[in-house]
Amino acid sequence: MPARSDEGMWLLDEPPKDRLRTKYNFELSENWLRHARLASIRFNSGGSGSFVSPDGLIVTNHHIGADSLQKLSNPERNLLRDGFLARKRADELKCPDMELNVLQEVVDVTVRVDASVRPTMTAPEAFAARRATMSGIEKESLDATGLRSDVVTLYQGGAYHLYRYKKYTDVRLVMAPELGIAFFGGDTDNFEFPRYNLDICFFRAYENDAPVKAPHFFKWSATGPAEGDLVFVTGHPGTTNRQETYARLKHRRDVTLPYNLARLRLMEAVLTQYSERGPAERLVANGDLHRFANARKAFTGQYQGLLDPAIMRAKLASEVEMIRGFRELKGPMGIEGVQAVVRIERLQGVLASIEKPWSLLERGDAFGSELVSIARQIVRLNAELLHPSAERLREYRDSNLESLKFQLLSPAPISAELERIKIVASLGFMAENLGGDHPLLLKILAGQSPSARADELIAGSKLIDPKARKALIDGGATALDASADAMILFARLIDGEARALRKRYEEDIEEPERQSYGSIARAKFAIHGRTLPPDATFTLRLAYGVVRGYRADGQDVPWKTTFDGAFARAERQQNREPFALPARWLDGRKKLDGTTAFDFVSTADTIGGNSGSPVLNRAGEFVGINFDRNRYGLVRNFVYTDEQARHIAVHSGGILEALRKLYDCPELLAELLGDR
Amino acid sequence: MPARSDEGMWLLDEPPKDRLRTKYNFELSENWLRHARLASIRFNSGGSGSFVSPDGLIVTNHHIGADSLQKLSNPERNLLRDGFLARKRADELKCPDMELNVLQEVVDVTVRVDASVRPTMTAPEAFAARRATMSGIEKESLDATGLRSDVVTLYQGGAYHLYRYKKYTDVRLVMAPELGIAFFGGDTDNFEFPRYNLDICFFRAYENDAPVKAPHFFKWSATGPAEGDLVFVTGHPGTTNRQETYARLKHRRDVTLPYNLARLRLMEAVLTQYSERGPAERLVANGDLHRFANARKAFTGQYQGLLDPAIMRAKLASEVEMIRGFRELKGPMGIEGVQAVVRIERLQGVLASIEKPWSLLERGDAFGSELVSIARQIVRLNAELLHPSAERLREYRDSNLESLKFQLLSPAPISAELERIKIVASLGFMAENLGGDHPLLLKILAGQSPSARADELIAGSKLIDPKARKALIDGGATALDASADAMILFARLIDGEARALRKRYEEDIEEPERQSYGSIARAKFAIHGRTLPPDATFTLRLAYGVVRGYRADGQDVPWKTTFDGAFARAERQQNREPFALPARWLDGRKKLDGTTAFDFVSTADTIGGNSGSPVLNRAGEFVGINFDRNRYGLVRNFVYTDEQARHIAVHSGGILEALRKLYDCPELLAELLGDR
Repeated sequence: MPARSDEGMWLLDEPPKDRLRTKYNFELSENWLRHARLASIRFNSGGSGSFVSPDGLIVTNHHIGADSLQKLSNPERNLLRDGFLARKRADELKCPDMELNVLQEVVDVTVRVDASVRPTMTAPEAFAARRATMSGIEKESLDATGLRSDVVTLYQGGAYHLYRYKKYTDVRLVMAPELGIAFFGGDTDNFEFPRYNLDICFFRAYENDAPVKAPHFFKWSATGPAEGDLVFVTGHPGTTNRQETYARLKHRRDVTLPYNLARLRLMEAVLTQYSERGPAERLVANGDLHRFANARKAFTGQYQGLLDPAIMRAKLASEVEMIRGFRELKGPMGIEGVQAVVRIERLQGVLASIEKPWSLLERGDAFGSELVSIARQIVRLNAELLHPSAERLREYRDSNLESLKFQLLSPAPISAELERIKIVASLGFMAENLGGDHPLLLKILAGQSPSARADELIAGSKLIDPKARKALIDGGATALDASADAMILFARLIDGEARALRKRYEEDIEEPERQSYGSIARAKFAIHGRTLPPDATFTLRLAYGVVRGYRADGQDVPWKTTFDGAFARAERQQNREPFALPARWLDGRKKLDGTTAFDFVSTADTIGGNSGSPVLNRAGEFVGINFDRNRYGLVRNFVYTDEQARHIAVHSGGILEALRKLYDCPELLAELLGDR
Repeated sequence: MPARSDEGMWLLDEPPKDRLRTKYNFELSENWLRHARLASIRFNSGGSGSFVSPDGLIVTNHHIGADSLQKLSNPERNLLRDGFLARKRADELKCPDMELNVLQEVVDVTVRVDASVRPTMTAPEAFAARRATMSGIEKESLDATGLRSDVVTLYQGGAYHLYRYKKYTDVRLVMAPELGIAFFGGDTDNFEFPRYNLDICFFRAYENDAPVKAPHFFKWSATGPAEGDLVFVTGHPGTTNRQETYARLKHRRDVTLPYNLARLRLMEAVLTQYSERGPAERLVANGDLHRFANARKAFTGQYQGLLDPAIMRAKLASEVEMIRGFRELKGPMGIEGVQAVVRIERLQGVLASIEKPWSLLERGDAFGSELVSIARQIVRLNAELLHPSAERLREYRDSNLESLKFQLLSPAPISAELERIKIVASLGFMAENLGGDHPLLLKILAGQSPSARADELIAGSKLIDPKARKALIDGGATALDASADAMILFARLIDGEARALRKRYEEDIEEPERQSYGSIARAKFAIHGRTLPPDATFTLRLAYGVVRGYRADGQDVPWKTTFDGAFARAERQQNREPFALPARWLDGRKKLDGTTAFDFVSTADTIGGNSGSPVLNRAGEFVGINFDRNRYGLVRNFVYTDEQARHIAVHSGGILEALRKLYDCPELLAELLGDR
């Protein structure tokens, strides 16, 4: 089972040196990797970015910055729609709750984590022991280094690595173009190519109120990539499922994805309706709406992929092959691998029986509300702090408390009316899934209709004010016990059932799956060594590929688009939203060289979470920024193909041309090009 | 259980004379009723309308005419968006497939239908016998009168009435305003009030190429209604479920509605995505999209209503009351009534086990395609014609063949690409509901992905051409057997399973439910007489109510809106779609008297299907046209309330003002006002 062609989201400490040497005659040096690691940035809210100047200047996608742009907007100042430019440092705007992580070090702690679980342990014992060990390692690391420390599960349980991150929480907005060009084509063109998006946004990291000195940053290539070039993408792909067994994929196809699709479509319909009430509502709902529409489209692509008999046949064939390999292994390792595959199949039945209640109650799909989520976390935080770190629910471990509180106390505005709408819809969704007479639903509704219950929760809570949250967090158990806040009471009402579901999920599914995948991984390592990268885990990975077009619907799709193409597409669409180019572009068209490359594609292996990832050339220079995949790439959760699947990036040369000719930002350009 | 307040969609032959006399001091005369019946029109595609001149001029809603407006449009002529006016008869445009029905006579055939079913019969025998009798009655009636003849099931099986309709199939477009004012506020304001819609459209019925002489038409009231007025609505409400048992409502809540909501949201998401590709796609998808969005919103209101404990408690209390009444009845009638309630509860379990496959395969939710539906009907038509009319599936009975073929051979354009999109989405929906390995799905996909299968079906079929359909229908079994048309082969592939599901549904659910509701109805009649109207059945009904505002969110909502209000709302919404007023309105604003009543509400009992219904005053004059309910009226499927629930209508005076000042249509005005 060698990874096909340019497949792979590689760990930077297990890089594909041989492949690159053999296929591309490229020597991937440790220096190149180290530089790439320290210049690459994780956006903790779910995205990637990179340093592009020694003064902490960061580039990411507009759609990754959008959450902050929205939070910094108000009825008088719509930064999301209209863009922003800080001409000098003092004008840069501090984001209310952005956390960035830069990976400093990775330590393999597999042996220590595995050693904490003895063969004689029951699943609950094993789960608790493993969790305690992981929390302990993280706490030790935090105390020793002061760095954010996360133990990451790789290969679904085959390895455990400790990731140490430098953390930035003072992040300021430097420049954003208009939504009309950043998200040109909107949800319509999302996951499509050709594209014409200036999907970029500049931030700057600060420490102690001064710009960060970033010794590692990517040099901006003014020329950018050309057709056939080898390129690299460093970033934080969120989740893939390529190493999962066939039975698990069938479960995704028949249970998980239909459920999630139903939820996304519901929320999308409700938010569309809400945002159509008027411009103010549109601004408030925009972020959620795009997120739901984007996920719905991505999941639809995944789902249609799993309905394709060719893909499922290939998956089954590869599993048969894997099992044959296991059988040929001498010793218990192969037998355990085969048994693990069988065990995972059996676990899917268990999973099917609790997945919906778990998703609804514990994951919170039944509430769909930021305030309910905050209330639940405050209630749990207080309860968990009574226990030692090692025994707490994982997100309340000592090493995570700072990041957690940073999010809980975010001063970003929350719309009460939007919360209300989402709660009504989500309670309805719970009923649709469990039935109107389900005891959990009746308990939650407390004798009221979803709409009346939502009214009561919103009207009776002060948590919309971060100061009220802080008072409850600081006040501890006493403050919580005394609180009559409707959201807090609600969180306490459901916490018992939610915890019970979580416990079942962790002990009946998560732990046995982890052990099983551990067995499978060990057998695979015995056969293939470490030549197969693990599934994506929202940690730093390296992908590589070739800048290349493809054929679709009987036509050649070229590797790049141009500015002229953007204007042509806008005209064909009669300049209507989401194809309405900003006035700056319409007025400034003549200033632009219309043949300049705008967006381009390559075969590098990316997935959601890679948004904002730098695209690099052999010299490690910044030649573009990834922002999307085409529709053929939507099955990449399960299989990599390079026949038509491509990731899509903005061209570094195109960015320069736009900034130079249209955005009147000499200071930013000077900083990017090092002309200072 | 007296019907509350102004509740009721009354049969015109069992009218609420006593109530009107007592409460409103109004004598409802047989002449009034006869005139109203003969001037009211059913739009067979699902709506209502009325004659408003002696020359066959008809008014209905723009959204009822929209299907024809779209079919008469093309890339050069967007009648749906831009409106239309025929200055003279010769300019009126013939609609490709509109059928109108005017009710001539109603005959109670309950005794004859019931007599055909003997107590010793099994359900299959009973179903077949009843169907044969109904088809026989219809055939006799058609042969005797030449009129369209339908036996309608009332009280869910408590009574059977034969409806005889005069049919019009040459219907021509006379005038339509722009979509921007007809559907001002779009799906955003749908089911809301205050509203500002000129939701009207004029057609004319022709026979033998000449305008129909209509001795019965509604005189247009130039003044229209005022606050507090008693008004009537005659029209064709589609479906209500007020007489259904508590168990049946729970089944709707927990099975039927969640399933339907999931489907509607899916189709809405897919069609939104398609229509955003560009103006041409928007035009093609517009009708479907609005229909799905409208249904989704209506069903959401129904569903939220059934999640309201107060409504369910009231429903249960009323059933307990009903059963108490049954128990007090002497003789077997009461006992049978009670047993029937129990039997219906038991039937819901059976229903739950086949409802999804039945909906997907037999009703066609798994295909969502007009072409597949046409192919299936052609295949069945040919097979059914081999049997005597009485033994055929009901829609293929002799008396229905003319209407059926009229629809099958419609020359209205069908978009192949939209069909493809809908098939892919619908096959996916089937998989989501039954699982990716379900034998029916595998059979339908025939080893391909949904997308590849859809491509194959579309590319391999000529049914998009009505001539190809005609050849197959005329060619009979021989032509069908020889056909290699992909859609026809597909229809044949699934017909066996679909028929089997239909048979189970008819014999295991429909027939026993019908018998049970028959028992319940007989017991109710014994207690209350014929004082309770039956649930809606898309047949002519009379509703009445009072023109009156209501309170919502702590504010008084007045009974009417004005033109000034429309302009104010457009301005608040920055004249953005769907609040962009047509140029004619913006330019002509000064010509209008801004205080003119535009839309208004009353307490009359309406539901979907009533769209386009005339609103009449005591004198039987046309004072408005119903086009919507407010959101509080969405639970009217299950309960009538008049606290906040209102139907919404365009004011006859407002229509005149707009036509006079903005639409430059003196001929139409003269005809409406009889000044000729």
